[in-house]
Amino acid sequence: MTRFYNLTQIKSVLEKIQPIQEIEEGFIAYSEGKTEIPPVGEMLFKKPPGDVHIKYGYIVDDDYYVIKIASGFFESPQSSRYTSDGLLLLFKKGTGELACALLDECYLTHVRTAAAGAVVAKYLAPKHVDRIGIVGAGTQGRMQLEFLDSVIDCKDVMAWGMNKKELDEYKEDMELVGYNVRTTLKAEDIAAHCNLIVTATPSKSPLLSADKVRKGTHITAMGSDTPEKNELDPRILQKADIIVADSISQCLLRGEIHQALKAGVLEKERIVELGNVIVNPNLQRTSEEQTTIADLTGVAVQDIQIAKAVYHALVGENKS
Amino acid sequence: MTRFYNLTQIKSVLEKIQPIQEIEEGFIAYSEGKTEIPPVGEMLFKKPPGDVHIKYGYIVDDDYYVIKIASGFFESPQSSRYTSDGLLLLFKKGTGELACALLDECYLTHVRTAAAGAVVAKYLAPKHVDRIGIVGAGTQGRMQLEFLDSVIDCKDVMAWGMNKKELDEYKEDMELVGYNVRTTLKAEDIAAHCNLIVTATPSKSPLLSADKVRKGTHITAMGSDTPEKNELDPRILQKADIIVADSISQCLLRGEIHQALKAGVLEKERIVELGNVIVNPNLQRTSEEQTTIADLTGVAVQDIQIAKAVYHALVGENKS
Repeated sequence: MTRFYNLTQIKSVLEKIQPIQEIEEGFIAYSEGKTEIPPVGEMLFKKPPGDVHIKYGYIVDDDYYVIKIASGFFESPQSSRYTSDGLLLLFKKGTGELACALLDECYLTHVRTAAAGAVVAKYLAPKHVDRIGIVGAGTQGRMQLEFLDSVIDCKDVMAWGMNKKELDEYKEDMELVGYNVRTTLKAEDIAAHCNLIVTATPSKSPLLSADKVRKGTHITAMGSDTPEKNELDPRILQKADIIVADSISQCLLRGEIHQALKAGVLEKERIVELGNVIVNPNLQRTSEEQTTIADLTGVAVQDIQIAKAVYHALVGENKS
Repeated sequence: MTRFYNLTQIKSVLEKIQPIQEIEEGFIAYSEGKTEIPPVGEMLFKKPPGDVHIKYGYIVDDDYYVIKIASGFFESPQSSRYTSDGLLLLFKKGTGELACALLDECYLTHVRTAAAGAVVAKYLAPKHVDRIGIVGAGTQGRMQLEFLDSVIDCKDVMAWGMNKKELDEYKEDMELVGYNVRTTLKAEDIAAHCNLIVTATPSKSPLLSADKVRKGTHITAMGSDTPEKNELDPRILQKADIIVADSISQCLLRGEIHQALKAGVLEKERIVELGNVIVNPNLQRTSEEQTTIADLTGVAVQDIQIAKAVYHALVGENKS
């Protein structure tokens, strides 16, 4: 029987799953060519302005396929704020039966995205993190930090945001969960004081410049997921020792790697794929001197993995 | 609040809607360029063999967008029979809120497809239909006939099928709803005895030949929806007076028109689009001598229209 779950029900089982491990396994399957992931479906709306993305696919040996629908509207009838919504559908292969609909309001997208940040840090962050830098004090700025907790032994944070109010709220929230947070309105301060940096903004022009980034820093750039968005000076990628894409094919067309290729400062051959980095220690950070960059644009295999894990947790819960 | 409806609930409100009118209005909007319909999304499965199609889009001035997911598996774990399943999702523009999920098990696809057959017959069938010919005694072979009832004044039917058992069942079912049914195992008989013919098979080679089709016949070919499937001898299109596509852009790539273009016997300029035929009497049948062909490959605007109509009927029902 098909089951429908709302956000409260989904959140209630999250502690039973291991998102970081699930996402790690997903990236491995993806880089090993064990997934079938068609191009992203897209609807663009002019009035009211917004967009809908359909990400879908399956892992070849799995019993399920997953379709995620995620929307963003910039001026909803109810408010002038950005509204995002969506759901995940898990179907049984062989019959097409809908196993479950997860009405997660995009929450699981935040979880799988933050989990990818932790996977990246596990293999690329320097051994000794002085201070974690968070560029962008929004939802992902919070969740990336929470997910780093299990892989990075550092409680000192510097956060950059658009304004003091946003940063004050961020500081308050993150200190509640055990971090020591300094804030700044100058993105340069992040580069100067942090050697593990996560950028999580919708910026269309670089926030970090190549001159300021300290040698040995790792940067996870997860804000850019379109051909236009851009958080890093392309020369940061030019100077980096290791450049990792969540999906090489996707990063050629969108994200920081796309920007650096377009700027002519990066050769395709230098890019390695996250799933390969996870399984091959030679592709991981091997010294504290290396500067490393991970470009996360979001891959459907993450949605597939998180949907399956949540479904199993929910069904297990219902059975008990 | 999101609502989920199963097939029983959906069927219970069908008599409150006017599928033929809804589909007609949808085709008009489509041909007038008032819809946004991206290319069909597709997943193909090798083991177990099957496919999933995602059809989606919206009418520009509407308050909703619709995503339909439909699957077909050829060897399900439970049986060796073909299994189809699917659902329709209706979302609110401006917020992305899921207004309803119609778990119709593909039934509404059958309805919107049969309704399109009736729309076509309304504008292209000869005034005097001697006998209706049905090629393919499956679900659509039944539903096309039921939907023709309101637009064609003829109760005499000849049906072709794969075997006697299938045809006996078909005859029994259709006589129960008031038709006089003769059956045949020779498709040629249909061409010889009928001047309104509907082909509804998954055939990959022509079932009707050009020599046998009587002058003045109308044929609705709705079985072929892929680049490979083919029910009509391409020369039938070559000799026809009016050739109608549900979607010209789609029929260039799949269906009977695609086959005739590939065979080099049809010029693109001869094809007219159904939405234009509906509004322009000059494009409709104007004499009993004309031979007319409609190629129906299935367009997302039909799914959009039927989903909206059923949703409104369901919500109205719940309010009362």
